[in-house]
Amino acid sequence: MDKIYTYQQLSDLCTAVFLKMGCSQTDAAIAAKALLAADCRGIDSHGVARLSGYVRLWEAKRVNGTPQLKIVHETPSTAVVNGDAGLGLVVAPYAMQVAIDKAKNVGTGWVSVTNSNHFGIAGYHAMMALPNDMIGIAMTNASALVAPTFSVERMLGTNPIAVAIPAGAEPAFVADFATTTAANGKLEILQRKNAEAPLGWIQTKEGHPSSNANELKNGGSLLPLGGDREHSSHKGYALGAIVDIFSAVLSGANYGPWVPPFPAYVPMPENMPGEGIGHFFGAMRIDAFRTADEFKQHMDNWIKRFRAAKTVTGEDKVIIPGDPEREMEADRSKNGIPIVSPVVEDLKVLAAKFSLSFS
Amino acid sequence: MDKIYTYQQLSDLCTAVFLKMGCSQTDAAIAAKALLAADCRGIDSHGVARLSGYVRLWEAKRVNGTPQLKIVHETPSTAVVNGDAGLGLVVAPYAMQVAIDKAKNVGTGWVSVTNSNHFGIAGYHAMMALPNDMIGIAMTNASALVAPTFSVERMLGTNPIAVAIPAGAEPAFVADFATTTAANGKLEILQRKNAEAPLGWIQTKEGHPSSNANELKNGGSLLPLGGDREHSSHKGYALGAIVDIFSAVLSGANYGPWVPPFPAYVPMPENMPGEGIGHFFGAMRIDAFRTADEFKQHMDNWIKRFRAAKTVTGEDKVIIPGDPEREMEADRSKNGIPIVSPVVEDLKVLAAKFSLSFS
Repeated sequence: MDKIYTYQQLSDLCTAVFLKMGCSQTDAAIAAKALLAADCRGIDSHGVARLSGYVRLWEAKRVNGTPQLKIVHETPSTAVVNGDAGLGLVVAPYAMQVAIDKAKNVGTGWVSVTNSNHFGIAGYHAMMALPNDMIGIAMTNASALVAPTFSVERMLGTNPIAVAIPAGAEPAFVADFATTTAANGKLEILQRKNAEAPLGWIQTKEGHPSSNANELKNGGSLLPLGGDREHSSHKGYALGAIVDIFSAVLSGANYGPWVPPFPAYVPMPENMPGEGIGHFFGAMRIDAFRTADEFKQHMDNWIKRFRAAKTVTGEDKVIIPGDPEREMEADRSKNGIPIVSPVVEDLKVLAAKFSLSFS
Repeated sequence: MDKIYTYQQLSDLCTAVFLKMGCSQTDAAIAAKALLAADCRGIDSHGVARLSGYVRLWEAKRVNGTPQLKIVHETPSTAVVNGDAGLGLVVAPYAMQVAIDKAKNVGTGWVSVTNSNHFGIAGYHAMMALPNDMIGIAMTNASALVAPTFSVERMLGTNPIAVAIPAGAEPAFVADFATTTAANGKLEILQRKNAEAPLGWIQTKEGHPSSNANELKNGGSLLPLGGDREHSSHKGYALGAIVDIFSAVLSGANYGPWVPPFPAYVPMPENMPGEGIGHFFGAMRIDAFRTADEFKQHMDNWIKRFRAAKTVTGEDKVIIPGDPEREMEADRSKNGIPIVSPVVEDLKVLAAKFSLSFS
């Protein structure tokens, strides 16, 4: 049974837990807001469900509660930020703000981040650009679960890309997706239900197609967007590779199979070539290209035309990227946020451990 | 039967044809080089096979042989270029050079292009960044052949993305792909062979899966990368949409279903919201992030590790994006460029029309 919580209840808990990890009041609030953006937008796998995972990383001394965030290299339009092993939930908003500030000065800003940790949902960080009349871009690498085309080895993370584009009267266009056929969170849902996965999502450790949602536990891999060679999995592999290189080879973080795992109990890879995990952020001022008013008028036209495109029988409309998450956010801000019972139990244990009240 | 030509033979013909279209000597050479990059790299659908198509666009007064290329808006890191209805093969190298020059000054350069035409292969333009120790990015929109998820209407082009990343001892990483399951060129090959297409590439005009390689002639559509909703076609749709918006809504070109068609006999869409087709280019100086030497050393490490990844039975190695095209280029620069007979005939007709010698 799900239990419904208000945003405030979850926010209070997250903030209190981050404070226990040594975060400043400011950082704890920033991290709680970034984390809860996932629950608000319906990406339940990336929200409070991961809170205890972050705590375990901190206990394993892989997350630093009091990082000194620093720009270690920069030009007028670029920077490399060293996250000092801080929570990605804190490092990412800092780095995205650097990108936004650079865009204010020279039109665009591009920031590659080293020595960070998981940053929640990419879309949240990309959307920071929107109130500034900028296009926002966010991506991150992650520990390897994905086999490149023709391979049986896990070499890439689900490496998501988010792009947020302002509109006028219409809501913003917000794409946020893993560069795999299916995000890991979707597999977790099937695992809980003991249901089969569609072919094209995963392969066995020998590289055969599999519908076993638990195949990753047997040494299998997620598949790049496209699924197989015939359906252009090499394109999903290339996209995941680009995210990896922009996030980590540009910044000095770990890449490919060397990205540190999220579960604290999984041993670290050997011979790591960098520090922590990497992210990449971009901000482009709309009026660095044309006036924001003109652009927004055309974005509204774009959105309305796509929304009105003729649908296949049985579907009532074409979806604009960001529509489902925005509708979910409106619903949950009104009706509260449902949390599945295993996560509720997990949060209660966490609260008890830190002597916090949560029920 | 294919006929083998030397690069010089094809280059002479293309240059002469572009001169007949009114291009300056310089522009004709630039256009011939950009066009032939496709034939050299094995992307035969985008090379000399399209030469007569460009001529027909010029005859229809949709291509201007003597464009005045202009930066119409700029900041230190951005520009909008108006292509004055010139050949995309000329406009794109100009705009990419603007991006590179801006990157020299402020670390990165980003150029959105309006009022252009088809630019050949995206990878060629992105690769202009490589000798400058920069990452290059190129994308373009194109006339609508692709139905968004849940739709039966053609709303997007195959909208390719290319990203070229320098390495050290290893060859550069060069990804260049349509944001659809299959590029239109692959369908054309099946059409010539009268062969079936795999399910997931195309749908009928009612939105049902189809294996008929000629389905587009019946009102069907290409499918976004992913193929269907279960395999995340919404991600391919989002990618194609991002290319469309960066290329055209940012610049003032036509977008979505309003992008002008490549075949000159197809009537122009009604109520077009912009000018011509749009492109988007980016250049990022490596040393705007870390030293080029350090970066290249890690890129070599990245490439070697991926190339060495364990393969599925029957495949001898994992491919690095750009490998097949580079190998093809090496082969064709040595052994000549094979042209299929319908294209040979087409080129002969074209040569005769302009009183050029070609056999």
